Amino acid sequence: MTGPVLKDETGAQRLLGYMLDLSDPAQGTVTLTVLPEHTNRTGRLHGGIVAALLDSAMGGAASLAWDDGGHYPVVTISMTVNYIASGAEGEHLTATGHVTGGGRKIKFCDGRLEAKGGRLIATATGTFKSVAPR
Amino acid sequence: MTGPVLKDETGAQRLLGYMLDLSDPAQGTVTLTVLPEHTNRTGRLHGGIVAALLDSAMGGAASLAWDDGGHYPVVTISMTVNYIASGAEGEHLTATGHVTGGGRKIKFCDGRLEAKGGRLIATATGTFKSVAPR
Amino acid sequence: MTGPVLKDETGAQRLLGYMLDLSDPAQGTVTLTVLPEHTNRTGRLHGGIVAALLDSAMGGAASLAWDDGGHYPVVTISMTVNYIASGAEGEHLTATGHVTGGGRKIKFCDGRLEAKGGRLIATATGTFKSVAPR
Amino acid sequence: MTGPVLKDETGAQRLLGYMLDLSDPAQGTVTLTVLPEHTNRTGRLHGGIVAALLDSAMGGAASLAWDDGGHYPVVTISMTVNYIASGAEGEHLTATGHVTGGGRKIKFCDGRLEAKGGRLIATATGTFKSVAPR
Repeated sequence: MTGPVLKDETGAQRLLGYMLDLSDPAQGTVTLTVLPEHTNRTGRLHGGIVAALLDSAMGGAASLAWDDGGHYPVVTISMTVNYIASGAEGEHLTATGHVTGGGRKIKFCDGRLEAKGGRLIATATGTFKSVAPR
Repeated sequence: MTGPVLKDETGAQRLLGYMLDLSDPAQGTVTLTVLPEHTNRTGRLHGGIVAALLDSAMGGAASLAWDDGGHYPVVTISMTVNYIASGAEGEHLTATGHVTGGGRKIKFCDGRLEAKGGRLIATATGTFKSVAPR
Repeated sequence: MTGPVLKDETGAQRLLGYMLDLSDPAQGTVTLTVLPEHTNRTGRLHGGIVAALLDSAMGGAASLAWDDGGHYPVVTISMTVNYIASGAEGEHLTATGHVTGGGRKIKFCDGRLEAKGGRLIATATGTFKSVAPR
Repeated sequence: MTGPVLKDETGAQRLLGYMLDLSDPAQGTVTLTVLPEHTNRTGRLHGGIVAALLDSAMGGAASLAWDDGGHYPVVTISMTVNYIASGAEGEHLTATGHVTGGGRKIKFCDGRLEAKGGRLIATATGTFKSVAPR
């Protein structure tokens, strides 16, 4: 089974405007075009939005590790984001998340956020646990 | 001098709908009421929004450490968020950030996100650097 | 029941030379006097030793949260250390760890490493899970 | 210029018994054979030693980014370690660190700790700043 490409699935996704692609069982992929409403006090992409994109990509990868349809709900235990370069209005960004290991209950993930052309904007690591589907 | 209470100052602030209070030079304070557009695939407060609130509160504290009016622009170097409990729609949340140390160029901060009544939702630590005001 | 004060209990403890005090059920406490063998290439306390002290203090606190005798074995899931100031040879250091939350399987902890007199050297957060006692 | 392979250079290196290889300007490499003195209360490799190896490998990579001889002193600003699998006595471990980005003052690094055969034990990210050589 292949996971879906999701747009406007959740409140936060509609608000932030990103796309979540779970069609590749080996990674979670999130895309966003930076708009004025994503910027912070210095006019750059807000660090919280960076975190949201990486959390979603890594959480998607963790979900796929439990269910290759990507429907399995997960919650983030902890996440670290490293802000390597700033993102600017108008840029097309892609966040990818991969599972690096873990067991039956906890998955470890790595994430990268890049601008078109490959400029690295942020890296992340996170730990995720499964929650029973509703 | 006392720092301002900011609403709708930046794109991300308008989008996410939080209030940033820099009137206490010893801490950055962010408040948000959780609405449907802040929730994730499991119906809980999105981890990225949690990160955004903590980043803003800690970044506010760091800014105040350089300028007690809180106008000094800072960028996040790295941030770690620990997701202790989930936040739910309708809850009134307060994120506070404090500076724990640092020197002329880098500040270290701690953050806490609590629901009304004191339930702890997340903790965070972050490192911030100053950027020249525009 | 009160937990023990442990010295030379494990290989790493003997090697690094720290003391682990689990007599207070509300916190894990680790003490170390910085000797030449704890220093790095710049002559300061090695960042890895800082991490070891904080990991032990937080892991002790997590163990006490499951078993007030502090015998319950735990493993670290993830840990973040913020290096606020450097530690110097001859200093008497105390690391303390506290549980900030968590459930039946995972505990969240905060840690602080201070020199005598209260100078803050590092802060940390960590997540820990229980493992079945051997 | 090529960086050195260092053994017993510093107090912590002698104490912990690892080797630091800076001969490849693109990465820092640390090797250690796990001995009884590296183990914790559960008989596994101590999380603090894991952190020490990753800190040294990433710090070495950061130093090489400023000085391809690897002599440039750096200090860790913050580090996150993800404990993916436990390390056991007798295993031969290799930690590698790479620079992912950064500017004139701060470098961002990724690290991996693997056992012989490629089993992944831990991942890490860290931020490092240069200090004036003594």
